[in-house]
Amino acid sequence: MKIIHTADWHLGRIINGKSLLEDQAYILEQFIDEMEQQQPDVIVIAGDLYDTSYPNKEAILLLEHTIRRLNLDMGIAVIMISGNHDSKERLHYGSTWFEKSNLFIRTSLDDINKPITIANVDFYTLPFATVNEVQQFFDEDSLETHQQCLAKSLSYINQSLNKEKLNILIGHLTVQGGLRSESERPLTIGTVESVEADSFKQFDRVLLGHLHHPFSIESDYISYSGSLLQYSFSEVNQPKGYKCLEIIDGAIVKEQFIKMQPLRKLEVVSGDYEDAIQERLNVNNKDNYLHFKLKHMSHVNDPMMHLKQVYPNTLALTNETFDFNTPLYERNEEIQKLNDEEIISRFYEYITDEGLTETQNTKLEAVLNDMLEGGSTK
Amino acid sequence: MKIIHTADWHLGRIINGKSLLEDQAYILEQFIDEMEQQQPDVIVIAGDLYDTSYPNKEAILLLEHTIRRLNLDMGIAVIMISGNHDSKERLHYGSTWFEKSNLFIRTSLDDINKPITIANVDFYTLPFATVNEVQQFFDEDSLETHQQCLAKSLSYINQSLNKEKLNILIGHLTVQGGLRSESERPLTIGTVESVEADSFKQFDRVLLGHLHHPFSIESDYISYSGSLLQYSFSEVNQPKGYKCLEIIDGAIVKEQFIKMQPLRKLEVVSGDYEDAIQERLNVNNKDNYLHFKLKHMSHVNDPMMHLKQVYPNTLALTNETFDFNTPLYERNEEIQKLNDEEIISRFYEYITDEGLTETQNTKLEAVLNDMLEGGSTK
Repeated sequence: MKIIHTADWHLGRIINGKSLLEDQAYILEQFIDEMEQQQPDVIVIAGDLYDTSYPNKEAILLLEHTIRRLNLDMGIAVIMISGNHDSKERLHYGSTWFEKSNLFIRTSLDDINKPITIANVDFYTLPFATVNEVQQFFDEDSLETHQQCLAKSLSYINQSLNKEKLNILIGHLTVQGGLRSESERPLTIGTVESVEADSFKQFDRVLLGHLHHPFSIESDYISYSGSLLQYSFSEVNQPKGYKCLEIIDGAIVKEQFIKMQPLRKLEVVSGDYEDAIQERLNVNNKDNYLHFKLKHMSHVNDPMMHLKQVYPNTLALTNETFDFNTPLYERNEEIQKLNDEEIISRFYEYITDEGLTETQNTKLEAVLNDMLEGGSTK
Repeated sequence: MKIIHTADWHLGRIINGKSLLEDQAYILEQFIDEMEQQQPDVIVIAGDLYDTSYPNKEAILLLEHTIRRLNLDMGIAVIMISGNHDSKERLHYGSTWFEKSNLFIRTSLDDINKPITIANVDFYTLPFATVNEVQQFFDEDSLETHQQCLAKSLSYINQSLNKEKLNILIGHLTVQGGLRSESERPLTIGTVESVEADSFKQFDRVLLGHLHHPFSIESDYISYSGSLLQYSFSEVNQPKGYKCLEIIDGAIVKEQFIKMQPLRKLEVVSGDYEDAIQERLNVNNKDNYLHFKLKHMSHVNDPMMHLKQVYPNTLALTNETFDFNTPLYERNEEIQKLNDEEIISRFYEYITDEGLTETQNTKLEAVLNDMLEGGSTK
């Protein structure tokens, strides 16, 4: 038996005003082709199919087209759950009909103890739910953290678990210790959202969505597939693809991450503004979605416009001259050791990227002397 | 064979800020119950399932629930087309899966010559399309009116028509001579939208949506089902329900309009403001959605608020004192025959619904005298 694990498609995603739909259609066409080769028994999509709860027409058509190819044309069973970006009701629409073709869309807590059985493997689904929703479902106000909610849900599932079978959980959540990227919207605001890895021990395998890095967690039975594409510049060096599990005689014998090649990657380019405009900077691919971090551009009027004329897919621009990333206390310590002239000279260099000229130095010395000694600079 | 014909559900409709969802859920529950009695072979829904192209969650859930009961639980074939209020793409979502359960959702011109065959009856579907869409589909810029577009579409369908069978067309459009209501949004702006009844002669039966009156047109083979509910105060006296056709030996032997009882009707109440507030006016049902047309309320601050305290479902209020419905030229002719005093006195009555008092009359006479004769009123 072969299981494909993917998640976080975020269809309809827009980064800095740029719709990624073309890139998403491209990578999903590649995914469809690969599935034709792989011939899996099940495809698991662990949440965040859409980027918003109110997806646009194009995103809906893309999801429908993709799933129709996989499920109806190729006859592959598909199990998907809702993530924190999806609207439960909208994603669930039509699912009673879909189940007749082995397309399972699970968005409700009502079904968490009802496994989907495919070839002697029981798939349990745990769609994203807020603490509030879990409280209401179990009618227990004492459930206050994600960890408590998960523990409650898992012990509830445990009552239905058939230990004779291989049990696989599909979820959308953050496991403690998982690597985070900027494009994962926090599951809730103001609560600790991650849960302990130990909670899942009753399952043979846990296939997760939410974290975008395919190697977000080190575990021999819990795994994130990672997102379909790089969805923020913090994911620049993350490989993207899907995972493939093979089961023989009721045991998982192999798990493999399979990389896919996107139409465009995300790329961060650092350097001097003039070098960027003159194409003297090392850019891997001019068609990539670029984030420029540039110096010496304070004199330029609308630098973004100029960059886009050379690199049409420029999505972000940071003025690196003002780099406030160095922690303040570090600089404070340094400052203690410097004299006034050095502090001013360093500050000047920090802001303008250039040292003081000889004339400026002489003038500075005179001004300082005047102020500190009370004399005249004339 | 039994065919049920309904249309114009307009799920999610809001009248003057009031959502009709509760009324729609109520009437659809009644419809489901009646279908359980009727046991039809096919239910035809001739467009405008939703009121907007971006329906809210509740409207989507209501449609899904209703169709699931009819199609999956009762096993009745359902054919629906998109109307001018529906989004083609959104309504069509999932339909490849749905067709496996004899739920047919047709929203595209691509399918107009592909009949849905049920028990030797061929159902052709003509979802709403703009003149532009028809132009593009046939790649003919010369198509400029709805009549031309329809003639073209029908002659195209004609090529596929099997005259040995009973052929039924399902459409969403206005036929010339059809009665209009205010809640039917014009199909297009600036073009003549209605088409000639003769165009449909190649069909044994034409089941239409768009016009809300169930007897919008007099024809022995073209029929509107009318809308599910009264959707504007211009529909106050229109019966609402569905139509039932019976076919025996390839011939339609019976067509019947079956009335349904809504949770609330729309009702127009005319009279005096004070009588309305004191509940002295004849109101058929205080729970109905009411449109008050009242006199003598110019002295009242926020009369709508006061009315709603007595009649919570008041949706509209017209001040009948200011009735500008009389055409201006009529009044102009009258005015020619009156003297100045009479003109002013009538105007006063027209605005306040009361005649001038004796004192006011004396004063008016004096003022007029003063102005016209140049004398003093003292």
